[in-house]
Amino acid sequence: MQALLESLRTIVGDDGVLTDAHDLVTYEKGWRYGAGRAAAAVRPATPQAVADVLAACHKAGVRVQPMGANTGLVGASNPDASGAMVVLSLERLSRTIDVQPVDGVALVDAGVTLSALNEALAPHGLMFPIDLGADPQLGGMIATNTGGSRLVRYGDVRANLLGLEVALADGTLVSRLTRLRKDNTGLDLKQLFVGTSGLFGVITRAVVRVTPRPRQRVATLACARDGEAVLQLLATLQAHVGELLTAYEVVSKEALGAVLRHGSYERNPFQGEPPAYAVLIELSTALAPEVLHLDAALEHTLGLHLEGPHSGGIDDVLVGRADDFWHLRHQVSESLREEGAVIGLDLSVPRSRLAEFTEVIRARLAAEFPGVRVADFGHWGDGGTHLNLVHDRALGGADPAGFKARLQTLVYDLCVGSFDGSYSAEHCVGPHNLAAYQRHTSDTVKAVCSALRDTLDPQRRLGTFDLG
Amino acid sequence: MQALLESLRTIVGDDGVLTDAHDLVTYEKGWRYGAGRAAAAVRPATPQAVADVLAACHKAGVRVQPMGANTGLVGASNPDASGAMVVLSLERLSRTIDVQPVDGVALVDAGVTLSALNEALAPHGLMFPIDLGADPQLGGMIATNTGGSRLVRYGDVRANLLGLEVALADGTLVSRLTRLRKDNTGLDLKQLFVGTSGLFGVITRAVVRVTPRPRQRVATLACARDGEAVLQLLATLQAHVGELLTAYEVVSKEALGAVLRHGSYERNPFQGEPPAYAVLIELSTALAPEVLHLDAALEHTLGLHLEGPHSGGIDDVLVGRADDFWHLRHQVSESLREEGAVIGLDLSVPRSRLAEFTEVIRARLAAEFPGVRVADFGHWGDGGTHLNLVHDRALGGADPAGFKARLQTLVYDLCVGSFDGSYSAEHCVGPHNLAAYQRHTSDTVKAVCSALRDTLDPQRRLGTFDLG
Repeated sequence: MQALLESLRTIVGDDGVLTDAHDLVTYEKGWRYGAGRAAAAVRPATPQAVADVLAACHKAGVRVQPMGANTGLVGASNPDASGAMVVLSLERLSRTIDVQPVDGVALVDAGVTLSALNEALAPHGLMFPIDLGADPQLGGMIATNTGGSRLVRYGDVRANLLGLEVALADGTLVSRLTRLRKDNTGLDLKQLFVGTSGLFGVITRAVVRVTPRPRQRVATLACARDGEAVLQLLATLQAHVGELLTAYEVVSKEALGAVLRHGSYERNPFQGEPPAYAVLIELSTALAPEVLHLDAALEHTLGLHLEGPHSGGIDDVLVGRADDFWHLRHQVSESLREEGAVIGLDLSVPRSRLAEFTEVIRARLAAEFPGVRVADFGHWGDGGTHLNLVHDRALGGADPAGFKARLQTLVYDLCVGSFDGSYSAEHCVGPHNLAAYQRHTSDTVKAVCSALRDTLDPQRRLGTFDLG
Repeated sequence: MQALLESLRTIVGDDGVLTDAHDLVTYEKGWRYGAGRAAAAVRPATPQAVADVLAACHKAGVRVQPMGANTGLVGASNPDASGAMVVLSLERLSRTIDVQPVDGVALVDAGVTLSALNEALAPHGLMFPIDLGADPQLGGMIATNTGGSRLVRYGDVRANLLGLEVALADGTLVSRLTRLRKDNTGLDLKQLFVGTSGLFGVITRAVVRVTPRPRQRVATLACARDGEAVLQLLATLQAHVGELLTAYEVVSKEALGAVLRHGSYERNPFQGEPPAYAVLIELSTALAPEVLHLDAALEHTLGLHLEGPHSGGIDDVLVGRADDFWHLRHQVSESLREEGAVIGLDLSVPRSRLAEFTEVIRARLAAEFPGVRVADFGHWGDGGTHLNLVHDRALGGADPAGFKARLQTLVYDLCVGSFDGSYSAEHCVGPHNLAAYQRHTSDTVKAVCSALRDTLDPQRRLGTFDLG
């Protein structure tokens, strides 16, 4: 290890290698889950230095944990407990943001943060359309294929990725930084590195597609009587404003109630009781107001819905309250924690079944786990729901971990087995949900992942878990 | 082989197995390139029957060529010359078109044609947004990741694919027919089967994302002085009508001239000489005319451009002539063949370099291959250009194939090497462009493809070529 550290210092400079326990703390713990011990943290600043670091570790037989901004939620970016891994932090690989407006793309170093990219794009009237609460690095966003609030219009990271450069476990740098929107020449290698948590290689640079910033954006809040009404309103919007719908976010009464009880807010947008579901509708467009009056378009469409057969499901439309919605929405998680232990699940089901799924879960929990409440919010436009299970801490008894695991298994099995859903809609896979991965992944996928690891990282030097 | 044919008849019925030379003709020849000999053609009607056919062939040690509608342009759907392969036609696997409007998806058998799918979607106000001249089957579209004229708005097949079922070479049926828009649970297996020409497995069913049919569609024709002017107009449109731009198609003067000389048309939309580039602009929207007057939006935006700094590049705007454009556009290939031998190349470069690329190619050919003309048309919104090289048949001399290969190599090397382009923008890979694949594909991609074949088809029973 000492010889390796010497080599690493030669590659990245003395201040690029951290070994003091004090300095290592932030590299050892995941954002929400996961904690371990690192032998060192190494911070290369160029793609070639990343490759050289990997080559040195490979030669020394030392395992490596890549780390971006460490905002992931499945424990896939921290080292294991062995104390023998090197954390490869991409934080200094953040020099390059090359915006190419005519091509509508940007070439970025993997360590560039989402906010830094958007700052660089703004003067060109452009943006990277993945909208998240956290501020991850681009490499991490690709490795976890992040989704977010505007997926309904712009898709996930995969849909906005054109080119990729990856350093393999042995230090080979594989570069295909293409700006092409159309390139159909066999296997699209980059797809293997999207959403596979850095296990097949360390992302060093990427070419992403960027989007014109909208000239207009409007949002409003609708109060829905039940989940079916949420879906009916979505159908009207898709049919009548289609390409302009950029967000369709929903918060349940249970989640809103917790914020109203514990959160900080200036105005309660609801009169008395919150609705079963509060729905945020956001439209945006490149068109100027003199061509399209976006407010009027939204008003017209809501009018159509309220005159139509499903009008009964919408109790109220609160114009001008979108900011209040976001303000409340961002306080859900912390407010729920005031009310007990919270198990946060990141699920998706076909959107036609979201209402039914949520009801079935509520009924099953009431029968089998009385005292556990469901406080959900989510991206109903794409079938995503963050299902928070809230319960009194005492309910777990002497074995809270076992209690949590039984709850999780019940929900995951229902979601995947009975509703064709996913146990990880947008958080990706990692040690935190590895048991679900093992249980719900086909043998073919596992065999292919093993073959890919055998080819790209035969000594299994990258990461702390496996997909095979 | 006789024993195998008996087994196959048991699986698909007597009329599902063809062995007469007369019947086999249509299964032996590719649409434009490729010809071989088949031992038999087998036409299963269900996914399980496809799997059973593959299992029987696997057991018998017989190689298989999957075939969709056989509209591909790279020779990847016909058998080789051995006469020992079985052609597995998907033409009867076309019973299921299950439209699910709330989820915005359709579950389809792989043998369903694009036109049949769109017919089934129309009553729901939906469409599959991949717009092609040919009428392929869905399985073939996925295996070749087709692009088409509206990629600029809707993306390629990959971007519209949610779930996939594949029968592997040994008859294993791998089914993941998900309707989920968000499912982030490790390797996305389906990506391996997109654009890899059926070499990793035979696609049997798919879930595709479908799109509301626009309420309004308008198109107009602009006459551009040069390639730079085409790009400048595109920039204005993307900034001001953004999400409404659904096609941006360009035909060069050379291609237009051939149609005007040899084609059949009622009206020549141009006064005298055709322009350097005729540009078709199409906008469409889900919005109703009372909310957005689409004609006015287009007029407004063109007005902005013609008052702006790049107005000089646009000589004319021919309102109401879009149908004339398509009429001429569809006659380019046959008209060019009236003027000599035609080598049709399917290229892309970053769109910022399309104008420069086309000029450099013209100059290089004039210097090194005098007598070879460039008659190009393409999808400039996404950097795609169909570069037709037209020449007197006598120019090839005693070795026309060698002449063609030298021409192709010159253009491909310039495109890929000097312009970061692709030698196959939307036609995919097959025997027809395998030499270019070998020359321009990285060792890592080849190694990964070999590993995938070793895992999914170790005896190399599928197809007539390899990606490793």
